[in-house]
Amino acid sequence: MAKKPAGKIKIIPLGGLCEIGKNMTVIEYEEDLIVVDCGLGFPDEEMLGIDLVIPDMTYLEKNADRIKGVFLTHGHEDHIGAIPYMLRSINPPIYGTKLTLGIIKNKLEEFRLPENPKLKTVKAGDVIKAGQMSVEFIHVNHSIADACCLAINTPLGTILHTGDFKLDLTPIDGEMMNLTRLGELGKKGVLALLCESTNAERPGMTPSEKKVGESLDYIFSTNRDKRLVIATFSSNVHRVQQIIDISAAHGRKVAITGRSMLNIVGAATELGYMNVPKGLIVDVGELKRFKPEEITLITTGSQGEPMSALYRMAFSDHDKIKLGAKDLVILSSSAIPGNEKLIGKIINELTKNGISVLHDAVVEVHVSGHACQEELKLMQGLTKPKYFMPVHGEYRHLAANCELAKSMGIPANNIFVSEIGKVLEIDAKGARWAGTVPAGKVLVDGFGVGDVGNIVLRDRRHLSQDGLIVVVATIDEADKLIISGPDIVSRGFVYVRESEALMDEIKEVAVSSICESLNGRHYDRMTLKTKVKDDLSKYLYSKTKRKPMVLPIIMNV
Amino acid sequence: MAKKPAGKIKIIPLGGLCEIGKNMTVIEYEEDLIVVDCGLGFPDEEMLGIDLVIPDMTYLEKNADRIKGVFLTHGHEDHIGAIPYMLRSINPPIYGTKLTLGIIKNKLEEFRLPENPKLKTVKAGDVIKAGQMSVEFIHVNHSIADACCLAINTPLGTILHTGDFKLDLTPIDGEMMNLTRLGELGKKGVLALLCESTNAERPGMTPSEKKVGESLDYIFSTNRDKRLVIATFSSNVHRVQQIIDISAAHGRKVAITGRSMLNIVGAATELGYMNVPKGLIVDVGELKRFKPEEITLITTGSQGEPMSALYRMAFSDHDKIKLGAKDLVILSSSAIPGNEKLIGKIINELTKNGISVLHDAVVEVHVSGHACQEELKLMQGLTKPKYFMPVHGEYRHLAANCELAKSMGIPANNIFVSEIGKVLEIDAKGARWAGTVPAGKVLVDGFGVGDVGNIVLRDRRHLSQDGLIVVVATIDEADKLIISGPDIVSRGFVYVRESEALMDEIKEVAVSSICESLNGRHYDRMTLKTKVKDDLSKYLYSKTKRKPMVLPIIMNV
Repeated sequence: MAKKPAGKIKIIPLGGLCEIGKNMTVIEYEEDLIVVDCGLGFPDEEMLGIDLVIPDMTYLEKNADRIKGVFLTHGHEDHIGAIPYMLRSINPPIYGTKLTLGIIKNKLEEFRLPENPKLKTVKAGDVIKAGQMSVEFIHVNHSIADACCLAINTPLGTILHTGDFKLDLTPIDGEMMNLTRLGELGKKGVLALLCESTNAERPGMTPSEKKVGESLDYIFSTNRDKRLVIATFSSNVHRVQQIIDISAAHGRKVAITGRSMLNIVGAATELGYMNVPKGLIVDVGELKRFKPEEITLITTGSQGEPMSALYRMAFSDHDKIKLGAKDLVILSSSAIPGNEKLIGKIINELTKNGISVLHDAVVEVHVSGHACQEELKLMQGLTKPKYFMPVHGEYRHLAANCELAKSMGIPANNIFVSEIGKVLEIDAKGARWAGTVPAGKVLVDGFGVGDVGNIVLRDRRHLSQDGLIVVVATIDEADKLIISGPDIVSRGFVYVRESEALMDEIKEVAVSSICESLNGRHYDRMTLKTKVKDDLSKYLYSKTKRKPMVLPIIMNV
Repeated sequence: MAKKPAGKIKIIPLGGLCEIGKNMTVIEYEEDLIVVDCGLGFPDEEMLGIDLVIPDMTYLEKNADRIKGVFLTHGHEDHIGAIPYMLRSINPPIYGTKLTLGIIKNKLEEFRLPENPKLKTVKAGDVIKAGQMSVEFIHVNHSIADACCLAINTPLGTILHTGDFKLDLTPIDGEMMNLTRLGELGKKGVLALLCESTNAERPGMTPSEKKVGESLDYIFSTNRDKRLVIATFSSNVHRVQQIIDISAAHGRKVAITGRSMLNIVGAATELGYMNVPKGLIVDVGELKRFKPEEITLITTGSQGEPMSALYRMAFSDHDKIKLGAKDLVILSSSAIPGNEKLIGKIINELTKNGISVLHDAVVEVHVSGHACQEELKLMQGLTKPKYFMPVHGEYRHLAANCELAKSMGIPANNIFVSEIGKVLEIDAKGARWAGTVPAGKVLVDGFGVGDVGNIVLRDRRHLSQDGLIVVVATIDEADKLIISGPDIVSRGFVYVRESEALMDEIKEVAVSSICESLNGRHYDRMTLKTKVKDDLSKYLYSKTKRKPMVLPIIMNV
């Protein structure tokens, strides 16, 4: 056996660990650095007013000259959504399959970027050289077409990053996940497996996408008198293809509504990922020409999103489509945790208006895109990795994936649960933690990237709970007098017209605070403001059990 | 057959319809009026800063002299929680079983009420006269002990209100729901059935509470080396009893933490609803004296509530209990919709600290307290009502319950889905809608009841999304000059220290708005304020794509 190289591998997650979304992993061999995925996340309920969350790119910016490429596993937002933000500061080559890059191109049109991005199309089976490393794209199944896992070949051995995957024995596009290639890699020896964990708590195997087709076909057969309105994830090209095929088989035309659905169907058809029979698609503007039972309507809004087409239809706010008793709405999706109430709101509103609704709790109109326990074990069994690192999931999912790895015989010492920014170093002698790099969440709010931090969020939370009281006064510090005011302005606190007495009391408290402070021994403006704030807060809490933000604005003549 | 009376029945839901919680129904026969339940609800995610939601009591206040009594089905918050608020304005007799009233007494101690409430203890089987009506309490099973449904006897026939129920063939306290009495009523003829709908979408039957005991016993048997920390709903007296019994059987002592858990166990033991072997309970302060495997810890926090004992334990913030690898945490509960993420947060934090967690997705450590489809059909089959009204549930649940009623042969014409405040009138000729009464939601925020309305909530939502900018200036209207300012104060908008240039720009925009307005043709202060607001909002949106609240405070010298 040849002598092992003396170099070092570093594996550094910059996102996607102990959280959902914003997947991004750095893998280095000596001076060469590659990035796997560049995704965005969505704000949690504490991040008021925030639109998106992206990974902190500081480490990439500092090491820009070492980056050999960004390698994308598939085209979901949580794997590609941060690319436009990355491209503001660095411009490395970006490798992805045709559909993945097609979605990115669509996306980039909204951003004005300084330079042209270097998008390089690959296909499953391709091997891309990246300095001393090389990256092989291997076909997997997932809830979007053209998904791959990545075998990263280094002088020390192969690191396999699964991306998101499931095993679909009867996939819609005819290609099963490439188990053979994974097995070949396993036979040669995989140094480390970075394995997704989303469904690691779920026993068994994820059903095939075909199962959804069977359920839909049954629904089509038993609802021949209704218009069928089907909401699903726009990026699930195979799902949409199935709906189109079943509609054609049942003699229905298909209309599409919702911006992202129209975008993706357009892009997927253009790139050859969808096959739409000629004349099948009709414009939603033409729907009046058809009887309800002649139409399938495919729509966005399966997560209850308040501006989505389904939401607008449910609340009679869609300019072209009015739902009624002749419609059957099918939610071909499952709730992303946190969206349950929004989805429930739509179901309630539809039911209230006499519209029937079917969803995944009632009939199998959705399957997951992620591997369940038996598939995760299959991945481990085929690749037989020396080291194991669970990725993509909340902590509970990572922990569950570790249990699976242990059950497959990987010694606990060889299992590494990482954190964002934490460096795992592997060399000929073994694997070990090796410090951290700058990493974390960057919040995007409107055009602002990173300008909203903890203080701003804390203020938003405070304002959201009990509102605000502004106390404005002009004082004469020399003569120790109040010249004008204090005026009290409140927002989000109480309905002022019905609380005039309280407003008068607030004013009195403010007056005496200001006077006491002006006449106190150690007067200064800051102390006065603090006193007004403290006195009023205390008074308001005792009177109302609320804690509005108190904002004293004191001017000196 | 005797001639039918000429009187009229009215059925008026004041809460609990098309929503979760705040259950309350008015039933009238001519001049006599009774109230079934008086519950509170919890705020939805739009109601920022709101603590509780209670039914609008206006109708009850206006008809106070006609109220013969408030009849309570059981002691859950969503059926009794609004009683302290009702007692502020009216003081009718309140009938409930011993445990129900015991919980209310505990609750009322926190409120200072003008008069002594008239609490009347009843037991299942009792019949209470209420003017021309009478109310019979009939035992049902539910996730709290001492629950009843109510047979309201009127001269026109019997109205059966199910309250919340399930059929438990092997309940913990030995009493199965009184199917015989329901059947007897059905045989005589039930005029109308008001039937709960919570689980109307779920097929089958709800498992017995005993099932949870079996699961727990297995967990106790297979985790003899661990301390068991079990979180559950404090009001589920039977669940807590089971945990105590199984602990005793396995030779463990029991410690209890969490205020509501301590309260309810205290009250239930005192009233004879719980049977705790002497010396079994130990104080959490004494835990250090015991080995982990000698202890079961029962705690609140199964919904992930941020101030609960479990939350504090998970985040190492409990003053007496520190969890570690020797602990197994069991969530003997299911997520109330909307709480999924909070519960997930606790599971993640526990797992991260090496603490194992079991929950109802993994093992059957919880059963519902509500009837599933077969039990709902059993209720309908036994009582054979002429009219059917689904209650207690979101609209989707009411609709599902209607489908069940149709499948049981109730004609669609005899099924009435009501709304809050909507009056169903029944007389000898039939049943029909008959207008509405004042009804709705009243929001409780701190001490304030009803002083937070739509405008205040709209402002809180606005502030929560993009924060606030205050513009303060003193002007001289006569000379058309700015005397001082404008000063810009922002909160929750951007981190000011890093956005000084933006703050300067805001000031410039404000200056020119004020000057233009002062020198404009039709000057007045209100127009000036509106202009400052509009100009700044427009400017800020174009620069930041955010819409902070702009609050101009303009004073004249």
